[in-house]
Amino acid sequence: MIKSGGITLGLLIYSEQLTKRYKKMQDILFDFISKYISLTEDEKNAILSLEIFRTVKKGTILLKEGQKSQDEYFVLKGCIRKYYIINGEEKTTAFFTEMEGLVPHCVINNAPSEYFVVCVEDTILTVTNPNMGVEVNTKFPKFQVMCGILSEELLAKQQINFDEFKISSPEQRYLNLLQSRPDLFQRVPQHQLASFLGIKPQSLSRMRARLSEKKKPVHCLS
Amino acid sequence: MIKSGGITLGLLIYSEQLTKRYKKMQDILFDFISKYISLTEDEKNAILSLEIFRTVKKGTILLKEGQKSQDEYFVLKGCIRKYYIINGEEKTTAFFTEMEGLVPHCVINNAPSEYFVVCVEDTILTVTNPNMGVEVNTKFPKFQVMCGILSEELLAKQQINFDEFKISSPEQRYLNLLQSRPDLFQRVPQHQLASFLGIKPQSLSRMRARLSEKKKPVHCLS
Repeated sequence: MIKSGGITLGLLIYSEQLTKRYKKMQDILFDFISKYISLTEDEKNAILSLEIFRTVKKGTILLKEGQKSQDEYFVLKGCIRKYYIINGEEKTTAFFTEMEGLVPHCVINNAPSEYFVVCVEDTILTVTNPNMGVEVNTKFPKFQVMCGILSEELLAKQQINFDEFKISSPEQRYLNLLQSRPDLFQRVPQHQLASFLGIKPQSLSRMRARLSEKKKPVHCLS
Repeated sequence: MIKSGGITLGLLIYSEQLTKRYKKMQDILFDFISKYISLTEDEKNAILSLEIFRTVKKGTILLKEGQKSQDEYFVLKGCIRKYYIINGEEKTTAFFTEMEGLVPHCVINNAPSEYFVVCVEDTILTVTNPNMGVEVNTKFPKFQVMCGILSEELLAKQQINFDEFKISSPEQRYLNLLQSRPDLFQRVPQHQLASFLGIKPQSLSRMRARLSEKKKPVHCLS
């Protein structure tokens, strides 16, 4: 196949950009893993050979209600959202951003998914499946150790989040989220945030207005 | 020390009963573990040597708000409850019954506990700590594998529970609980269940009355 010089050069540059981007993503993933276990070059290559990196456009639906899937996600850059459709209305229950992973329930119980997963932003993630896990874990048992530690950490975090949700008023939930995940307020539409907090969008607007009113300095007339 | 025959016999019988009870508890624990990994006699003895079995009376507080503790619990028989005190009011966020474990957050972040843990019934449980875990896991790495799998399972269960709590109405939450954990309705006082479901005790009473009214057969006048 003969290409004009311009196109070839363009493809070369594009391919180089892509290689650079993936290179960067690999480094991000390996940096994350290195917090738990140290990897040899062999082990890094074993991960790379699985070809797990994906670049996905904003709005792409990764998983649909009713779909069977074995895909597990780990976000390297971007944001994905989990939501249910109840009586025709979207109910958002979670956001996953950088260095957060989602193993959909349908992967574990091998049943059709009860919810959707969609990209809120252009997202770079790893997509793996339990078979890959078994393969890598058998070859390199320390991955199993890392997955165990990661699950324990996630479980602890999740338990605290669940407790906080249960014991807090809507306003406290909003303030907690503002403190723990301030980035979400810039990245996610208001109505999705409201749903995530378990409140109506109008209530969230009123709450934000009331709280920003409280913050305003009081001018004294002298 | 000289004892009369009666007391010695009594002590012997008591000691035998205690031995039998612990023997039974060991079997329950080993049966549970055998779902994940097979244990050799050496490994079983390593667990037993840790002396982790405890019998605790109903009402005993295992963990207090503000307390530092390294104790992790796994219920073999009975029920324990986790609750916060918010503005002088108890907020129950979880119950743990047979074959359910709780690693309090204070164990993980090494900070004073934010909540209480109390026995709802006379309870037999294992009490372990992270150091024991490290010791056993180093000696028998397959325990680490089991803990990882257990955490993954718990995480999946917890995520579904959290989602259900967020997307359900109070009435749906009540019906879900009735289906998934019917035993709790016999074991736990109404006001604690109401708190766990995130509703007022009066609302729970009204809900139960309404739902039992719906169930009554309709008598047709002919």
